[in-house]
Amino acid sequence: MRGKFISLEGGEGSGKSTSLAHILSWLDERNIPFITTREPGGTPLAEEIRSLVLNERDEKVHDMTELLLVFASRAQHINEKIKPALDSGVCVISDRFVDSSFVYQGVARQGNLAIISTLTDWVVGQCLPDKTILLDVPVEIGLARVQARQKIDRLDKESVLFHESVRSGFMDRAKADVKRFSVIDASQALDLVLGDIDDVLTQIFESSVN
Amino acid sequence: MRGKFISLEGGEGSGKSTSLAHILSWLDERNIPFITTREPGGTPLAEEIRSLVLNERDEKVHDMTELLLVFASRAQHINEKIKPALDSGVCVISDRFVDSSFVYQGVARQGNLAIISTLTDWVVGQCLPDKTILLDVPVEIGLARVQARQKIDRLDKESVLFHESVRSGFMDRAKADVKRFSVIDASQALDLVLGDIDDVLTQIFESSVN
Repeated sequence: MRGKFISLEGGEGSGKSTSLAHILSWLDERNIPFITTREPGGTPLAEEIRSLVLNERDEKVHDMTELLLVFASRAQHINEKIKPALDSGVCVISDRFVDSSFVYQGVARQGNLAIISTLTDWVVGQCLPDKTILLDVPVEIGLARVQARQKIDRLDKESVLFHESVRSGFMDRAKADVKRFSVIDASQALDLVLGDIDDVLTQIFESSVN
Repeated sequence: MRGKFISLEGGEGSGKSTSLAHILSWLDERNIPFITTREPGGTPLAEEIRSLVLNERDEKVHDMTELLLVFASRAQHINEKIKPALDSGVCVISDRFVDSSFVYQGVARQGNLAIISTLTDWVVGQCLPDKTILLDVPVEIGLARVQARQKIDRLDKESVLFHESVRSGFMDRAKADVKRFSVIDASQALDLVLGDIDDVLTQIFESSVN
């Protein structure tokens, strides 16, 4: 049986890392074979491309360049890692996937959504996640969490307005594909967030047994 | 006045380096301001992307990945180097440009030509060369020259069939845009090749004066 493909999405400080660790424990306890991966990145080459996108540099990275690099790493990731795993019955859990491109490069940076759609059709094709878990959190709460942990990269420095458009971008994606998306209120207490994630996982893996 | 944009194209062993050096001398003697550049590459970031494409690695570089990396480097190259130079009245001489993508990734590697067209429209837009000089040489002559200089990279290892499709791919591009292309018979003696290049350069820069 083909493995399940789950992506985890959310803005800054939405608790993706904690949630990801929880998902992996959940699968592990049930002896469900899986690999974890992330975007941009996921293979050695794709990780090198990720570094090009995220590293600080004097040269301005043009928005077009960033978008194309993200899709280049995705093409490598899908063809060399995700598809082979799914085909061999292994589940794939990805920290971010194509929805992040629509939201970060498309909506928040006001990139060319038609091009993103064209590239998605070409690069992703039928390899969309079976389930996308969206951790939704108000921007002020998310950014306060990020500041508390003092880990700043290029994206963290963007304005609150940027993060607001990220949040609404993700919610619009979720509304447009309610079957694939499960939106979780990540402003809740942690045990409630993880409980909601458990419900989603149970739903995914029970439905695959029936 | 906007600078002239000239690209130099040709298969392996077509004499691009010698021709390029000749073009630069020609411009220099006439005090025409210019910069030289190359694809993939042209800016520090674009050169890093070039290394990802051309370096030997254990991981297979998927054709989709290669195409997207080439266009990512091109987006950076055009927006951060070529356009600013042309706008300030400086000529740009590029060792390879977009025709190489159509020919190498599209025709020879049988990539998705519709996607290449879409990406070209988006990334290159109106920034096509004023003149593309195509150095055409029969494959057996070109490859013999390459073997003689013992400089082998990933592309050099491809089969003769591959190089045949590169050659015919370039000729098809030239036939489809006779105004932009000047095809030069690069199997001639060097002084004749350089003489032909002089004629093309005279034509470009005389027409811009009139």
